[in-house]
Amino acid sequence: MIRIFVTGGTFDKEYNELTGTLSFKDTHLPEMLRLGRCRVEVTIRTLMMIDSLDMTEADRAIIVAQCRQASESQVLVTHGTDTMVDTARALAGDAGLGGKTIVLTGAMVPYAFGSSDGLFNLGSALSFVQVLPPGVYLAMNGRAFTWNEVAKNRETGVFEGQ
Amino acid sequence: MIRIFVTGGTFDKEYNELTGTLSFKDTHLPEMLRLGRCRVEVTIRTLMMIDSLDMTEADRAIIVAQCRQASESQVLVTHGTDTMVDTARALAGDAGLGGKTIVLTGAMVPYAFGSSDGLFNLGSALSFVQVLPPGVYLAMNGRAFTWNEVAKNRETGVFEGQ
Amino acid sequence: MIRIFVTGGTFDKEYNELTGTLSFKDTHLPEMLRLGRCRVEVTIRTLMMIDSLDMTEADRAIIVAQCRQASESQVLVTHGTDTMVDTARALAGDAGLGGKTIVLTGAMVPYAFGSSDGLFNLGSALSFVQVLPPGVYLAMNGRAFTWNEVAKNRETGVFEGQ
Amino acid sequence: MIRIFVTGGTFDKEYNELTGTLSFKDTHLPEMLRLGRCRVEVTIRTLMMIDSLDMTEADRAIIVAQCRQASESQVLVTHGTDTMVDTARALAGDAGLGGKTIVLTGAMVPYAFGSSDGLFNLGSALSFVQVLPPGVYLAMNGRAFTWNEVAKNRETGVFEGQ
Repeated sequence: MIRIFVTGGTFDKEYNELTGTLSFKDTHLPEMLRLGRCRVEVTIRTLMMIDSLDMTEADRAIIVAQCRQASESQVLVTHGTDTMVDTARALAGDAGLGGKTIVLTGAMVPYAFGSSDGLFNLGSALSFVQVLPPGVYLAMNGRAFTWNEVAKNRETGVFEGQ
Repeated sequence: MIRIFVTGGTFDKEYNELTGTLSFKDTHLPEMLRLGRCRVEVTIRTLMMIDSLDMTEADRAIIVAQCRQASESQVLVTHGTDTMVDTARALAGDAGLGGKTIVLTGAMVPYAFGSSDGLFNLGSALSFVQVLPPGVYLAMNGRAFTWNEVAKNRETGVFEGQ
Repeated sequence: MIRIFVTGGTFDKEYNELTGTLSFKDTHLPEMLRLGRCRVEVTIRTLMMIDSLDMTEADRAIIVAQCRQASESQVLVTHGTDTMVDTARALAGDAGLGGKTIVLTGAMVPYAFGSSDGLFNLGSALSFVQVLPPGVYLAMNGRAFTWNEVAKNRETGVFEGQ
Repeated sequence: MIRIFVTGGTFDKEYNELTGTLSFKDTHLPEMLRLGRCRVEVTIRTLMMIDSLDMTEADRAIIVAQCRQASESQVLVTHGTDTMVDTARALAGDAGLGGKTIVLTGAMVPYAFGSSDGLFNLGSALSFVQVLPPGVYLAMNGRAFTWNEVAKNRETGVFEGQ
């Protein structure tokens, strides 16, 4: 059984055709898991629906607390890519999470758009979380990175080992 | 470095608009890896482009030989779902593959169609192959199965543990 | 008010993931009109769901009778491309249709697949039927053809004036 | 032969994955015509690539001048929906356009996104421009409106007759 926490990010952004802007409505996670014919047992909970640039320390504290309280030992967090590393650090700094495998993932292009990397990343993150040993990881670009060995290259949009 | 062998299957089927039938042209793997913003180093080689129901023992022998000869220790094989288990068994029966992690994956719906599970499965298989210990596995429905503990349920199209 | 008669054809074919074949379920017309934000008043009726190569003279008689009985003077018929011209001829041969504008359209690639021409053709046919004078027409490849001045080039899949 | 002038608008907006914003690159018109298997002869020229809310009177003067100078008597203009009516009015006010059929169209959702009305609208506009008498029209929501008998309802995003 895997716990999935949704926090928003590019992953779940949609085009609002009345305002011509990008915004959040509901998460696309259930639809994406259906598309992937996923048969892993998951419980999805939306913690927030925000751009990760707008994420405060209080928001991060909520994510950390929810991961700590989750009864599952495998936890996937969908998150905006811009501050994904910061949230991973906050999670890694919490002693109460010791025995859990926590994987953060996101997308460079919203799932609702044609050319999204979201479905690939979700398949990747769901797989890594089932087999990696306890710890906090980022799953992006087909790779898994330990939380303190990765940074997003803002020029290229690619996550790179440090 | 991961080796990817393409053998065809639903994954790579396309709609031929002149004949109104499904057939094979080139593999979609490079395009799918681009869409997934995949930065894992891979080498792709197309071994055949066939429906797995048409796969002969000679075809399977080619796949086994290629997996044995590959210098990479992580190998991903795209394959039709109908006889994926048979090819996995052939691979597992080859003593020369002992030290390699081989993951087979496929799709229930062609990648070229709107509602394909292909991108999800590719993200999943690429992740499993990087972290699972040596052995032969199937990656479908978000899960990894050891080759001798899985069967495709033909009523539901779902791979199930045995 | 426009009457739309659905007869099947490539337009409405779907991929059956259990059998790996193309088949019919329900028509995609309502979904396509919603996607096109269409605000023209239409009434949709499915007459049959068949490949136009399987269409018999009895099937054509049903289409002709339904077009004759329709109270609307603008009628759109979705149809497989292979025998679209034959059905157009049957319609043109019916004296009772004199005052109506009837437009047949279809698709080279199923709407459910990524690269379909279906939405373009539907927008085209719906527009032509509103402004063309009474008669029987085919709307394909962005053009409208009078029923007796067109043939499908089976080498290229393109409808050409004769 | 139809002349197509591209001015930008939602139609051609793309998601910039590095900045997370919507912006313009190249027009999608050629790709859309290819998808629609369009065989109408067209000449495409990009006049500007802007949001129609940013369109100035000088920009409108360019569009009017280009429509006047075009040798084709059928002209299609892609345009943002917010000020499409304003540009139509500017075109209608130019005496030199008297003999031409000019149709403006656009989209509520960018073509590059999954759920766009763009392909439907393009099929519709291309069809209307071939058969409507000289004048200036808007093609949206499956309908053609004379320039002075339409307004965009900003609450619903729908173009309505006045």
